[in-house]
Amino acid sequence: MSAPSNPTGNLIPEARNAGIATFMNLPSSRELDGVGAAVVGIPYDLGGEAGGRHAPRAIRHVSWMLRSTHGAFRIDLQRASPAVDYGDVAVHPTNREATYAAVEDAIGTIVRADAVPVIFAGEHSLLLPVLRAVSRRHGPVGLIQVDAHSDTQDRYYGDERYTAGSVIRRAVEERVIAPGRTIQVGTRGPVYSEDDHLHVEELGLARLTMDDVDRLGIAGTAAAIAERCGEGPVYLSFDMDAVDPAFAPGTGRREPGGFTSREALALVRALRPLRIVGFDLNEVNPLFETEGTTCVLAANLAFEFLALTALRVSGR
Amino acid sequence: MSAPSNPTGNLIPEARNAGIATFMNLPSSRELDGVGAAVVGIPYDLGGEAGGRHAPRAIRHVSWMLRSTHGAFRIDLQRASPAVDYGDVAVHPTNREATYAAVEDAIGTIVRADAVPVIFAGEHSLLLPVLRAVSRRHGPVGLIQVDAHSDTQDRYYGDERYTAGSVIRRAVEERVIAPGRTIQVGTRGPVYSEDDHLHVEELGLARLTMDDVDRLGIAGTAAAIAERCGEGPVYLSFDMDAVDPAFAPGTGRREPGGFTSREALALVRALRPLRIVGFDLNEVNPLFETEGTTCVLAANLAFEFLALTALRVSGR
Amino acid sequence: MSAPSNPTGNLIPEARNAGIATFMNLPSSRELDGVGAAVVGIPYDLGGEAGGRHAPRAIRHVSWMLRSTHGAFRIDLQRASPAVDYGDVAVHPTNREATYAAVEDAIGTIVRADAVPVIFAGEHSLLLPVLRAVSRRHGPVGLIQVDAHSDTQDRYYGDERYTAGSVIRRAVEERVIAPGRTIQVGTRGPVYSEDDHLHVEELGLARLTMDDVDRLGIAGTAAAIAERCGEGPVYLSFDMDAVDPAFAPGTGRREPGGFTSREALALVRALRPLRIVGFDLNEVNPLFETEGTTCVLAANLAFEFLALTALRVSGR
Amino acid sequence: MSAPSNPTGNLIPEARNAGIATFMNLPSSRELDGVGAAVVGIPYDLGGEAGGRHAPRAIRHVSWMLRSTHGAFRIDLQRASPAVDYGDVAVHPTNREATYAAVEDAIGTIVRADAVPVIFAGEHSLLLPVLRAVSRRHGPVGLIQVDAHSDTQDRYYGDERYTAGSVIRRAVEERVIAPGRTIQVGTRGPVYSEDDHLHVEELGLARLTMDDVDRLGIAGTAAAIAERCGEGPVYLSFDMDAVDPAFAPGTGRREPGGFTSREALALVRALRPLRIVGFDLNEVNPLFETEGTTCVLAANLAFEFLALTALRVSGR
Amino acid sequence: MSAPSNPTGNLIPEARNAGIATFMNLPSSRELDGVGAAVVGIPYDLGGEAGGRHAPRAIRHVSWMLRSTHGAFRIDLQRASPAVDYGDVAVHPTNREATYAAVEDAIGTIVRADAVPVIFAGEHSLLLPVLRAVSRRHGPVGLIQVDAHSDTQDRYYGDERYTAGSVIRRAVEERVIAPGRTIQVGTRGPVYSEDDHLHVEELGLARLTMDDVDRLGIAGTAAAIAERCGEGPVYLSFDMDAVDPAFAPGTGRREPGGFTSREALALVRALRPLRIVGFDLNEVNPLFETEGTTCVLAANLAFEFLALTALRVSGR
Amino acid sequence: MSAPSNPTGNLIPEARNAGIATFMNLPSSRELDGVGAAVVGIPYDLGGEAGGRHAPRAIRHVSWMLRSTHGAFRIDLQRASPAVDYGDVAVHPTNREATYAAVEDAIGTIVRADAVPVIFAGEHSLLLPVLRAVSRRHGPVGLIQVDAHSDTQDRYYGDERYTAGSVIRRAVEERVIAPGRTIQVGTRGPVYSEDDHLHVEELGLARLTMDDVDRLGIAGTAAAIAERCGEGPVYLSFDMDAVDPAFAPGTGRREPGGFTSREALALVRALRPLRIVGFDLNEVNPLFETEGTTCVLAANLAFEFLALTALRVSGR
Repeated sequence: MSAPSNPTGNLIPEARNAGIATFMNLPSSRELDGVGAAVVGIPYDLGGEAGGRHAPRAIRHVSWMLRSTHGAFRIDLQRASPAVDYGDVAVHPTNREATYAAVEDAIGTIVRADAVPVIFAGEHSLLLPVLRAVSRRHGPVGLIQVDAHSDTQDRYYGDERYTAGSVIRRAVEERVIAPGRTIQVGTRGPVYSEDDHLHVEELGLARLTMDDVDRLGIAGTAAAIAERCGEGPVYLSFDMDAVDPAFAPGTGRREPGGFTSREALALVRALRPLRIVGFDLNEVNPLFETEGTTCVLAANLAFEFLALTALRVSGR
Repeated sequence: MSAPSNPTGNLIPEARNAGIATFMNLPSSRELDGVGAAVVGIPYDLGGEAGGRHAPRAIRHVSWMLRSTHGAFRIDLQRASPAVDYGDVAVHPTNREATYAAVEDAIGTIVRADAVPVIFAGEHSLLLPVLRAVSRRHGPVGLIQVDAHSDTQDRYYGDERYTAGSVIRRAVEERVIAPGRTIQVGTRGPVYSEDDHLHVEELGLARLTMDDVDRLGIAGTAAAIAERCGEGPVYLSFDMDAVDPAFAPGTGRREPGGFTSREALALVRALRPLRIVGFDLNEVNPLFETEGTTCVLAANLAFEFLALTALRVSGR
Repeated sequence: MSAPSNPTGNLIPEARNAGIATFMNLPSSRELDGVGAAVVGIPYDLGGEAGGRHAPRAIRHVSWMLRSTHGAFRIDLQRASPAVDYGDVAVHPTNREATYAAVEDAIGTIVRADAVPVIFAGEHSLLLPVLRAVSRRHGPVGLIQVDAHSDTQDRYYGDERYTAGSVIRRAVEERVIAPGRTIQVGTRGPVYSEDDHLHVEELGLARLTMDDVDRLGIAGTAAAIAERCGEGPVYLSFDMDAVDPAFAPGTGRREPGGFTSREALALVRALRPLRIVGFDLNEVNPLFETEGTTCVLAANLAFEFLALTALRVSGR
Repeated sequence: MSAPSNPTGNLIPEARNAGIATFMNLPSSRELDGVGAAVVGIPYDLGGEAGGRHAPRAIRHVSWMLRSTHGAFRIDLQRASPAVDYGDVAVHPTNREATYAAVEDAIGTIVRADAVPVIFAGEHSLLLPVLRAVSRRHGPVGLIQVDAHSDTQDRYYGDERYTAGSVIRRAVEERVIAPGRTIQVGTRGPVYSEDDHLHVEELGLARLTMDDVDRLGIAGTAAAIAERCGEGPVYLSFDMDAVDPAFAPGTGRREPGGFTSREALALVRALRPLRIVGFDLNEVNPLFETEGTTCVLAANLAFEFLALTALRVSGR
Repeated sequence: MSAPSNPTGNLIPEARNAGIATFMNLPSSRELDGVGAAVVGIPYDLGGEAGGRHAPRAIRHVSWMLRSTHGAFRIDLQRASPAVDYGDVAVHPTNREATYAAVEDAIGTIVRADAVPVIFAGEHSLLLPVLRAVSRRHGPVGLIQVDAHSDTQDRYYGDERYTAGSVIRRAVEERVIAPGRTIQVGTRGPVYSEDDHLHVEELGLARLTMDDVDRLGIAGTAAAIAERCGEGPVYLSFDMDAVDPAFAPGTGRREPGGFTSREALALVRALRPLRIVGFDLNEVNPLFETEGTTCVLAANLAFEFLALTALRVSGR
Repeated sequence: MSAPSNPTGNLIPEARNAGIATFMNLPSSRELDGVGAAVVGIPYDLGGEAGGRHAPRAIRHVSWMLRSTHGAFRIDLQRASPAVDYGDVAVHPTNREATYAAVEDAIGTIVRADAVPVIFAGEHSLLLPVLRAVSRRHGPVGLIQVDAHSDTQDRYYGDERYTAGSVIRRAVEERVIAPGRTIQVGTRGPVYSEDDHLHVEELGLARLTMDDVDRLGIAGTAAAIAERCGEGPVYLSFDMDAVDPAFAPGTGRREPGGFTSREALALVRALRPLRIVGFDLNEVNPLFETEGTTCVLAANLAFEFLALTALRVSGR
C-alpha cells in the first residue's frame, strides 16, 4: 500500500489523496500493542434510518484532507500516541443479536488493550453493545450524550426494544452507564408526547437542551458537563443530528436549530479535562447529502477526539 | 389511506414515512369544524422565481420527520387544537387574476371558519390575495414581514404591478394591512437604488435590518416587533430568503448573511404573545437545492406556527 | 383535497402538480368496489439495500407528470377501469414477520376484491408475502421476474433465509409460484459462485440472460416469456436493477449493461396477451439518485401496468 | 474580453474554459454582416415548466468544451460561415405579449440579415413568435417538430391559448407553417385524451411516433422527414424532451423511452439535404438536473445545427 | 449583447438573468479609462486543488442575482465608480511560469490605470504574481490574508516552491508584502507539524486564529487588522476556505469551524477605513458543490469589495 | 482489516460494504508472487481535466458491489488467478517528470513479476510512462485505444508536449507502441482542425469512428480490432469518454453519442482472444458526477478486464 503521507518537516512527499482510504491515512492494522487509539467502523443501521451502514467508508473517503498535527494543542497525533485504523466490525446486516455480539467483542478487544476506541457507528442503537464492552473494563461509565433527541423511549413500533430511539433507557436498565454521571446535551425539536421530558427525571439523567446550550455558551456547557461527570471514566457519544442540518445535512433525522460546526468542535475540545475512555460518532448518513459536508465534519470531530486522547496519553 | 402515525404512549405502531404524504401526516380534509389550523399550499410562482410552484408538495414530502408534540412548550398539537392538511388552492398556472381569486376564496373559507391558515406559498406576491381574505375577516392587520427584501417596489419590468417585489406596496395601497402596525425584519443585501430605504418611510412602515437584528438579538427583535404590532390581529409572512443560504439554499434570491435556523425558529417562538391570525412561508424553491435542507426547515417553521396556534386555542 | 386534474376534452382545469401527492393524482381510497387496480406501497427495506423504504412516497412525488390516457393503446385508464391509490401497507420497520403478515393481509384484501395490485415495494424479499396472498386467490402463479439477479441464493450472511437475494428460492419452496411457468429475464453481471447458473436448473426455472434479450430483441423476448407462462394467471415482478444505471441510477445494486427505458417499457407493453394478476416494481432507492430519473421511469412502468389492466378489464 | 480559443494548426494558445461564457466562445456581437448564423437565447418560461428561463446561460456555461471543427463533415465552422453569439432576446418575464413582440423583433432582424437563427428557448410556446418572424421572411415554412408531445391542445387550464402544449395548433391557425410540409417526430407516452391522435389528422400534420422511429431507424426516419418536407424552406424545432431522460434529465416533462443522444445527433446530421432556415432547441431546464448532461447535449445539438448551416453557406 | 439590467428608478426593464454572463451584468470591456474597478478571473489551479480553474465562470454564472446598489452604504456602485468585467487572464493551463507572467502583466495593466483589481483566482498560489504587479505600483503592501491556513510552508511534495500552501513565504521572500503590516485572519484546523505556528514569528507576520476572531468579535477583529495594517496601501486576499463549509462547501480544503457568511460580509465591510488597493477571492471550487451556495457568497463578497472601492473613489 | 467478503458456497458471512475500501475487497498487498493481476491507481491529473486525481479512491469506494465470479464466463476470479489491490503510485502532484518516473517504476515492477497491471489513471497522458514500462518488458505493443478523441495533437497551449491530447503521438514517436498494430475505437465529436483525420494516416494508425462502430456492431468491431492487433502482445487503454455521458457523466470532456454501457462491456469481453498484457481505464472524473454511475461502470469494466486475465492465466 502506498506510503503514509505524514510530512517530515516541510517535506510532503506524496499526494495525501493517494492510496487506499484508511481514516486520515492511518496504518490499517489490528495490532494494538502500544496503540493509543483505534478507529473502528460499525457499518450497520437496522436500529435507525437506512443508510448509516455506509458511514464508515464515506468518512474514510474524505478524511485524507486531515493533516497530522492539532494546530491549537500543538501536538502531532501519531508521534504522541500512535493510532490505527482497525477496520470495521464484522456486522451481520440483518441480525441484531449477532451484530451486537460482534460489536461487543471488537470493542472489548480494543479496550482490554488499553486503546481508546474511536467509533463511526451507523446508528445510535449500537451504543448499547459498545457500552457493554466498555463497562466490563471500566464499570458503569459516565455518559456525555450530544444529541438532538433523548433516545429514552421504551419501545418503538409497539414492541421493539433495541432501537436508536430507546438506547439510553436500555443502557440505564443494563447498568452500563451511571445515570448520576450522565448528561444529554443539545436536545430540541418535536417529540412524541407531552411527558417526554419526564423520562430524564425518571431515569435519573441530566439534560441540557439546545436552549440551555444557547444560554450557557460552549464554555458554560462544558463546565456543566464536567461538573456532572466528575473524575471517573466517561464515554462520549456524539449523534450527528446534534449539529444543525446546514452543517450536517447527512443524517437521518434532521433537526434545525442545532450546533454549528464551530460550537461542536469547541465543545469536544473543551472536554479535555475529563477522563474519556471511548468515543463514538453516530448517525452520519451519506445517502442524505450530496456535498460531503457532513463526512468532512465527522472526520474533524474524530480528529479532535484523537487529539484529546493523544494529550492524555502523552501526559499533557 | 394509511393510519396516522401519532404515538400512543410509547407505542409508535407504524413507520412515519409510510402513507400518502400529507403535511406532518395530518388528516387530509376540507372539513373545518372544530379545526384550529388548516395547512394549505399555493403551488404558483408567476410573480417570482420559477420553481416555487413545487414547494407545497416538496415540503409535505419531507414533513413525515416531524413528531406530534412541541418539546419546549410541552403541548401535543393535535390534542390541543386539531389541524388538517387542506390540500392546495386550485391555482391557474398562467393566469394571475384567476389564481388570486382562488386564493382569496380558499383563505376566506378558512378564516371564516375561525381556523388559522398556515400557508406554503410558491412566491411572495400571493400574500396580497391572502391578506385580502384575512382583512375581510379581521380588518387591516398588523404585518410581520420576515424577509431579506422589502418588496416595496412600485413596478417591475417597467409595468408589472403584481410581483413578489412589489407586494407590500400593493398591500398598503389596498389597506389590507395597517402600516403603523407593520414591521419588516431581516432586510439586507444589494438593492435597486439609493433611495430604496425611503420606501419604508413613505409607506409608513417600520424596518429592522439584519444588522439591527444582529445588534438586538432575537429577544430584543421580538420585543421590538411586539411593541410595533400591539394587541390587534397580526399576520406573519415569512419569506424563506430571510434565512441564510447555508440553512436555506432552496430559494430563488439567495442573500448571504441571513438568519440561522436557530434564530429563525427562536424568532417565531418568541412571537407567542402576539395575536397571530395567519401565517405563510413563501419563496421555498425545491429546484434550487439537492439535499432538502430548506424543505426540512420550512416544515419545522410551520410546526412552530402550529404550536403557537395550539397554545392560543388551548388558552395557554 | 384538491380536485383531480383529469382533463375533460381540452380543458385541464388545474395544475397537475397541485394537491396532495397520490400516485398519478388517483383518488386516495381503500374502497375497492368496482375498482380495477389498486396502487399500494410497501415502505420497508430490511431484506435489501437501505433506502427502498422511501420509494413509494418518492414515486408518488414525481407521478403528477403522468397524463390519464395511454397514447399508443388509446385508452383512458380511469374511464376504462377505475384505479385508486390504496396508500401504504402498515409495515413494521424492524420486524420482518409482522411486516410480511401485514403485506399478505393487505394484498389479500385487494385480490379478493378482484382488483389487480400494482405494488411499489422497497425491496425484493417482499415478493414472498405478496405471492402468498396472490396464490391463495389464484393458486401457484406463473412468474415473470425481470431482474439483473436471479435471487436464488439459499441463505445470506450465513443464516438469513428471507432476503432480496433468496426470495425466488423461498417462493419455489413454498409453492406459491409454478416453476414450470416461471422465467427470469435480464440477469447479468458478477455472481457469487461458479455454480450460480445451476440454481435455475435445480429449481426448475427458465432464464433469459441480458445477452439472450440482446439477441432475441424485445419482441422475441416477449414471445419466449409468453410461451413459458402460458394461459394461466401470471405475476410480473420488476426489479428496477434490471434497467441500466444510466436510466435507473436509483437502486441499491447497480449493474451496468441492462435494459434501456425504451426496452423496459416495450417489454411490459408486449406482455399484453398474458393474464397478469399482479405487478410489483421493487428496489427503487431514491437515496441513490439526485435527479429523480429512476422514480419517473418507475411511475411510467406502473402506468404501463395500469394500461394492461385497463385493457383487460374493458375487454380490449 | 479574453481572446477566442480557436486553435491555429496544433497551437491552442489558451484554456478554452477561460473568458466570459459566450456560446462555444463565439464572438459576442449583434453585427450581422457576413454572418452565417446567430446564436440567440430566449430566457423565458411562462408558457411551460418553471426553470427554462435559465437555459440559455446554462448551455453557454458548458459550451466551452466544444471544439471548432466538425470531425465527420471536416469543416471548420467559423472559417466556413462565421457565427456570432447574439446574446438574449430582451424578454419581459411576466408579460407574454411583450415577450412575443421582442422575440418576433429579434428573430426578424436576424433572418432579414440572411443569418440563420440558432435559438435556445426556455419553453416551446416561444416557437410561435419565432415562426411569425421566419414566415414573414420565407412564407409559411415546413416544420420538423422533434418532440415527445404533439403540442396540439386547443387550450390549457380552461382558457389559456398560448402555451407550450398548444403552440402547434396556434402555428397552423396563424398559417406560419405549412401543415402539409410539417411532421412530428418522436411522440410517445401518456396523453390527455383518447382522441389526442386525431389532432394530427384534423390539423393536416404528419406524425412519426417513437415506435415508428424505432421501426424505421434514423436513416429511414430522416428519409420520411425529407419526403414530407420537400425542397422548400423548413424550420427545425427540437424539444429536449424528445430525448430520453437518461440522456436529458434536465427538462420539465420527462418521458422515458425517447431518443438516445446518438440517435438525436444522427437525426440532425441526416437532415443535411433539407433547406433549413432556422433551428431552435427548447425545454432545456437546468434546474431539473445536477450533472449538466442535458446542457452538454444541447450544446452539441446546436453544434450540429451550426455545421449544417456552414455546409450550406459554403456550398458543400 | 443584451442591454444592461440596471434599473432606472422603479423601472427594471428586463430580466436580470438574461444575456451573456458577465459579473453582475457589468459591461464586458478592457477599456480602463475612468474605471474604478476591474473584475478579472484567473482560471488556473495547478498550485492547488483541481477545479478552481472553473471558478471565474461559475461565479459570473450566478452573479445576475446581485442588484446595483449597496443597501447599507446607500451607494449605487456603477454611478459612483464604474466597474468593468475585464474577462480572464490568458493563463497557460499547464505552465506555471507562463501563467504567472500573464497574471503579472494583466494585473499590472489594471493597477497602472489606477483601477482596483477585483480578482477571482482559481487557487492561492496566484497571489504571488498578483502581488508582484501590485507592489511594482504601490511598493511592498500590507496584506490581510483571510484564510483557514497560513500558507507558509517552504516546499510541498519535497521540492515544489510555488504552491497554494507556500505562497505567503514566497511573498515575504520576494518582498512584495511588508510583513510588519501583514496579518492572517481565521486560521484553524489540523496542520502539518508542531512548529507550524513558529512560521508566523519567523516571517515577522501577525496572526488572528479563528479562536481569536471568536473572542474578539468581528468589530474587534477589524480593529486589530486596522492597527496592524496602518494607513499605507493594503491588499486583501480572501481564501474561501476561511468560511465554514456549511456556507462555502465549494472549496478544495474544507475546514469546519470557520466564518459564517454574516461574519465574512461584516468583516469586509468593517475594513472600510483601510486603503485597500487590490482584492482577490481565491480557492472557490465549483466542482465540490451542487447547490451553488459558495459561488453566490463569492459574488456577494466581491460586491462588498466593489462597494468599498466605490466609497473610496467617490470620497465617502 | 476486516475479513474479505468472498462467499463460501451460499454463505456470505459479512456485509460486502464493510471494511476498508480496496478494489472489489481484494487483498491490499504489494506482494506479487503468484499474482495474476495487480490493480493500481495513478491519482494524478495535470495532463488533463482537473479532478481525475480522485478517480482511484472513488472507484474503490463503490466497488464493494462487485461479486467475485464472472457470471457469463463462469469463473471465480480470485480462485483462477489471484489479484491484489496494489494501492496507488506515489505520484508527485505538480511535477510531471517525477510522476512519470514513479509510474514507469511501479508498472515496471508489476509487469516484471508477470502480473497484468489493471490501472485507474487520472488522465490519459499517463499512458506514456505506462507504455514505457510495458514495452520494456514486451517490446512495442499493439494498442487498442477506446476513446472519443484521437489524442494525436502535437502540442497543446502552444508548447506543451505531454498532455492527454497528445499522448498517442508521443507513444508513436517513442516507439513504445507498434502503429501497425494500433487501432482507435469510438472517436467522434468536434475536433480542432479540418486536417485532424490526417493525423491517423500520418502516424500509421487505424481508426474506427463511432459511426463505424455503429455500422459494424460490437462483434464486427471486435473482429476488426483482432485483425488489426494480431497475435502479439496488446495493451488496452480505455478512456471513459468513449462512453456516452448518460452512462458516464463523470469525465472531463463529455462527448454525447458514445458507447452504451452494454456495448462497452461487450466490447471488452469480445477481446478475449487477444493477448492483452495491460489495461488502463482513464479520465474518470468523480467531481463531474453526483450519482456515482461512472465509477460503478468503471469498476465493472475493470472486473471484465480481470476476468479476461483470469481466463488466460487458467488456460481457458
